Amino acid sequence: MVWQTPRGTRDYLPKEMKQRNYLFSKMRKIFELYGYGEVVTPAFEDFELLSKKSGEEVEKEIYTFKDKSNRKLGLRFDPTVPIARIVSSNPSLTKPIKYYYITRMWRYDRPQAGRYREFWQAGLELIGTKTTDSDAEILAVASDLIKSMTNKEFYFKINSRKITEQIAKKAGIPKDKKQKAFIAIDKLQKISEEKVKQEMRDNQIPQQAIDNFFELIQKQDIDLTELQEIRQKAQELGVKNIEIDLSVIRGLDYYTGFVFETFIKDNEGIGSICSGGRYDKLVSIYSGKKEDTPAVGFGLGIDRIMDIIGYDKNYYPSQVFIANIKPELKTKAIQLTQQLRKNNISCEYDLMNRNFRKQLDYVNSKNIPYLIIIGPKEIQNKEATLKNMKTGEEQKIKLDNLINEIKKMNL
Amino acid sequence: MVWQTPRGTRDYLPKEMKQRNYLFSKMRKIFELYGYGEVVTPAFEDFELLSKKSGEEVEKEIYTFKDKSNRKLGLRFDPTVPIARIVSSNPSLTKPIKYYYITRMWRYDRPQAGRYREFWQAGLELIGTKTTDSDAEILAVASDLIKSMTNKEFYFKINSRKITEQIAKKAGIPKDKKQKAFIAIDKLQKISEEKVKQEMRDNQIPQQAIDNFFELIQKQDIDLTELQEIRQKAQELGVKNIEIDLSVIRGLDYYTGFVFETFIKDNEGIGSICSGGRYDKLVSIYSGKKEDTPAVGFGLGIDRIMDIIGYDKNYYPSQVFIANIKPELKTKAIQLTQQLRKNNISCEYDLMNRNFRKQLDYVNSKNIPYLIIIGPKEIQNKEATLKNMKTGEEQKIKLDNLINEIKKMNL
Repeated sequence: MVWQTPRGTRDYLPKEMKQRNYLFSKMRKIFELYGYGEVVTPAFEDFELLSKKSGEEVEKEIYTFKDKSNRKLGLRFDPTVPIARIVSSNPSLTKPIKYYYITRMWRYDRPQAGRYREFWQAGLELIGTKTTDSDAEILAVASDLIKSMTNKEFYFKINSRKITEQIAKKAGIPKDKKQKAFIAIDKLQKISEEKVKQEMRDNQIPQQAIDNFFELIQKQDIDLTELQEIRQKAQELGVKNIEIDLSVIRGLDYYTGFVFETFIKDNEGIGSICSGGRYDKLVSIYSGKKEDTPAVGFGLGIDRIMDIIGYDKNYYPSQVFIANIKPELKTKAIQLTQQLRKNNISCEYDLMNRNFRKQLDYVNSKNIPYLIIIGPKEIQNKEATLKNMKTGEEQKIKLDNLINEIKKMNL
Repeated sequence: MVWQTPRGTRDYLPKEMKQRNYLFSKMRKIFELYGYGEVVTPAFEDFELLSKKSGEEVEKEIYTFKDKSNRKLGLRFDPTVPIARIVSSNPSLTKPIKYYYITRMWRYDRPQAGRYREFWQAGLELIGTKTTDSDAEILAVASDLIKSMTNKEFYFKINSRKITEQIAKKAGIPKDKKQKAFIAIDKLQKISEEKVKQEMRDNQIPQQAIDNFFELIQKQDIDLTELQEIRQKAQELGVKNIEIDLSVIRGLDYYTGFVFETFIKDNEGIGSICSGGRYDKLVSIYSGKKEDTPAVGFGLGIDRIMDIIGYDKNYYPSQVFIANIKPELKTKAIQLTQQLRKNNISCEYDLMNRNFRKQLDYVNSKNIPYLIIIGPKEIQNKEATLKNMKTGEEQKIKLDNLINEIKKMNL
């Protein structure tokens, strides 16, 4: 019988996890260089918390359930809401608060290429500061993260929700159609202008307002001081690849100012790989306080990045296999294996009581790059045979010297 | 308003996550030294899969829910079942399969000290081999893991389900009471012998069978060859601290042979910190095949280990804060910050446009150990003041030399 993972989810096996863990540890290093600390929040939250901002309608995208005490819960589908919960419930935390996360989330969505119901996201939240220094800093962190993962060229597109709001008003987009208009315009990075306009018309937005809007986002007569300041400060931090693009909106409705998206050059079709913005009003929705708690953050889709960079299909943890030609030589193989492990060399010996030929089959099947052979002749001469499985090259090495020789190979 | 995490769950904030991540990376290294590769499986599985082994009764311990297409799912409460799914659905995987995991799981249980509804577990599964070498190897991995996390003395207690079955039969425990008897005896490591006997009586196990059982586990007349062989082989791998104890049973009913528990010396009351055993029949339940797929594994409770070792309550990612005495000196502070980060030194500058005194308050509040002060006098002399916040010691350092001096401090 063949069992499958639930629709939209999948297993991550060692070859892929090795690459993910490698990325994750590089990411942790970068976040922490900038003073961000990792937080992990529960996989599920009270549904009331999850829906507080977005309303009950969000339920169709959340895995919800009741626990045995009839509490309604939902799997986390957004990392920002739980962090807003922490911050709003702990008003004594010193600001700015610098949190990062690398975690799985769940969204009940139609699975498609690169989109899963269970997905991984990394990101940060910088809470308590409204300066453009903060907006610039998160671009710098995003830039360092992406550079650490791929050598492909990329660039940021930045905009401000405040500007978009002004333009929408100036263009004459009816107030009650604004959110629909923004959702349509958000697709401009992915679909043609004509299709976006059609979607706006389908939502009963007047043609004149649509035309006005598209004219206005060509930047004439708009005050870009704040965006220019963010770009300037990000440049001081070493981030050069920033375009101001007034068509960038971001779908989420909690953004209140600066927003950004990130594109791989000549690969814009896959969409933004890292996006975020300022959400100065979200925390106060949870704290119930009148004054805003300024905040800015971004999320970076790990699965999409993994699709771009791939992973080593030949990876196997062990670098060395120590084969025993005869059963009575196994004790020697075990001793050597433990010595190598003590010297930080990943290795193994036969756990199946197999004969030598079968041990070789195993080494080939797992792509273990080095083989050490312990045979009767070798033991007599106090040596072992070391074989490079890629080149086929073999050499005899004195047992006394074996550990040192293998350490020199820097496996 | 104060929001809380759902009952039995909690947030992990940066100070604690730093310590957890440190443990996790040491654990990954050890698992991989032994040739194990990490697997991550979905947070939820088909309920049918989860209940296949344990029956519907397990439902009361699982968070179950239906997705929008009315599929019944359940949050993962055991790492072994999903790995058995992978192995049974991929019969071509070369044996032995060496998998490890470090992951969160969910169990609907009454929360108590050290027991959460959302909890973390690390462990391994070694699948496809029935040799005592395999049983010994997992003890060696467990031993290295625990040594890497605590310098407290610990020891393993090993037993075999086969022996327990023999003893139960010999003692005259009725077949239909066997599982109840085992559940009671499993508590011997935690509660008194008298209480265990009472629980057995409460389950209608005859007094004579109880007395026989307790007499028989004193080891007379029992063939311990296999356990002695495991202990001998583990000793060859460097694991000396193994006791044979026929009262160790393990609650889970899927064990078929070797089982073990691990105790911290003089701290036995907290229970076993790492437990596991052989489950030769579990994979075939999923594959539907007649022949067994031998397998052995263990799990290690991270939360309990964290309770024992604690974490640094003063940790904050940034090691250095670069304060600017006047706003016009901020550009210099930013430049220095970025240079330090490029040199792998975690640091930050003021993101709040605060005055110098407030910047100092921030440094104290976050426990940042070093402060660099950029003032007008300093800039004139092309230097900066470096202050050790712990000792109060201050020194002037030429700007040209600042990065090198700080690198020398090995922060």
